[in-house]
Amino acid sequence: MTRPGTIWGIGLGPGDPDLMSVRADRLLRAARHVAYFRKAGRPGQARRIVEGMLPEGVDEIAMEYPVTTEIPLTDPRYNALLSAFYEDCTRRLRALSDAGEEVVVISEGDPFFYGSFMHLYTRLRDVAPVRVVPAITGMSAAWTATGTPITWGDDVLCILMGTLSEEDLVAQMRRSDALVIMKIGRNIDKVRRALRTAGRYDAAWLVEYASMEGQTVQRLSAAEGRVTPYFSIILVHGEGRRP
Amino acid sequence: MTRPGTIWGIGLGPGDPDLMSVRADRLLRAARHVAYFRKAGRPGQARRIVEGMLPEGVDEIAMEYPVTTEIPLTDPRYNALLSAFYEDCTRRLRALSDAGEEVVVISEGDPFFYGSFMHLYTRLRDVAPVRVVPAITGMSAAWTATGTPITWGDDVLCILMGTLSEEDLVAQMRRSDALVIMKIGRNIDKVRRALRTAGRYDAAWLVEYASMEGQTVQRLSAAEGRVTPYFSIILVHGEGRRP
Repeated sequence: MTRPGTIWGIGLGPGDPDLMSVRADRLLRAARHVAYFRKAGRPGQARRIVEGMLPEGVDEIAMEYPVTTEIPLTDPRYNALLSAFYEDCTRRLRALSDAGEEVVVISEGDPFFYGSFMHLYTRLRDVAPVRVVPAITGMSAAWTATGTPITWGDDVLCILMGTLSEEDLVAQMRRSDALVIMKIGRNIDKVRRALRTAGRYDAAWLVEYASMEGQTVQRLSAAEGRVTPYFSIILVHGEGRRP
Repeated sequence: MTRPGTIWGIGLGPGDPDLMSVRADRLLRAARHVAYFRKAGRPGQARRIVEGMLPEGVDEIAMEYPVTTEIPLTDPRYNALLSAFYEDCTRRLRALSDAGEEVVVISEGDPFFYGSFMHLYTRLRDVAPVRVVPAITGMSAAWTATGTPITWGDDVLCILMGTLSEEDLVAQMRRSDALVIMKIGRNIDKVRRALRTAGRYDAAWLVEYASMEGQTVQRLSAAEGRVTPYFSIILVHGEGRRP
């Protein structure tokens, strides 16, 4: 009987390949099968990060989302399509593992922190050996880029998605010292209004493409009218105790 | 005139040297001066992580805290002693930079996320070239160790210090989907009570020494009466949307 191969869920970090972990770097450079998600017809952000690092002749498995923003998240068809897609990806990866092959699944950021790999992980963990390599989050790269520490002393840090309702955003923003808001894109006007209502707008920073080519760092108030990518991050720094 | 040397604030990550970034690894292996904080008479956690990695003949600068838990945080003497200590460290590092030497300051975790390097950073950034290398946080290693993703979909994640008041802890725990609680140690009984009051106790996990030798992962409820280190992490996983 063939011993099943390990499926590695590897976080690539915020985007700069130099910020990958030593373990991720080593596993990638020795990989035989590398799988990644991407939008159909796009190179894919994870694949872009590892450009030039994969061994010659590596088998690449592009897992193309059947849908991204064409159907609203609340539509039941969205869940059905995505669920069938993840099942299909799971079958492909499991077939390789069953044949004794190691597979490396790469994704931006940290796999267990709002990551897409989680949807494969929960389907695979009981049927194949799966190991996860944590990574530097995009938010760490973003607060590093602002040149100001995010949290001090007893500061409470709250991480919010721009996809939340305006009311929820306001309530959460009011009770936290430091804030990280992710999944911005089309949600930016709602997030701006919520920050204003919560009295945090003037302290907010907008970071685009943290640690990557094209990185920008500016006060949110200086970016009025700006169209910003989905993966932008908005930050409010804590002001806690410091000797 | 000598060109001033860069002072690098390098995050080492959660503890396993394999989880250091490629950049941190490279800078350390080429370092001439390596500085780190430690408690007097102890090897120091940061120094322990880089054991075997530093070049021969490297100049080591141990910065020993004048006080850790002997004086309560609320005592004004605590702030005065720490402040004088950080000023002194700043002078030592700046003298090297002024002489054209590069210095690497190492610390566990991510430098801008509740890190001790921040206290040097704010004193140095206007008088010397300082660069910061982000890192994998201890909490990422902790949630990876539990084998369960921490956040899904729109989950709100709140990061709390065990040093907060019980009342504050309860209020924050009630309003968040996922929770990370750090700085545990002697605060564990207060944190337990707060989790119980907030109805989150049964869902909480305790992770000790994440990614390091001696790592333990258990339900908090199974660790009754346990004395746990200051750097333990308590987690409650989010249960958000998943296709």
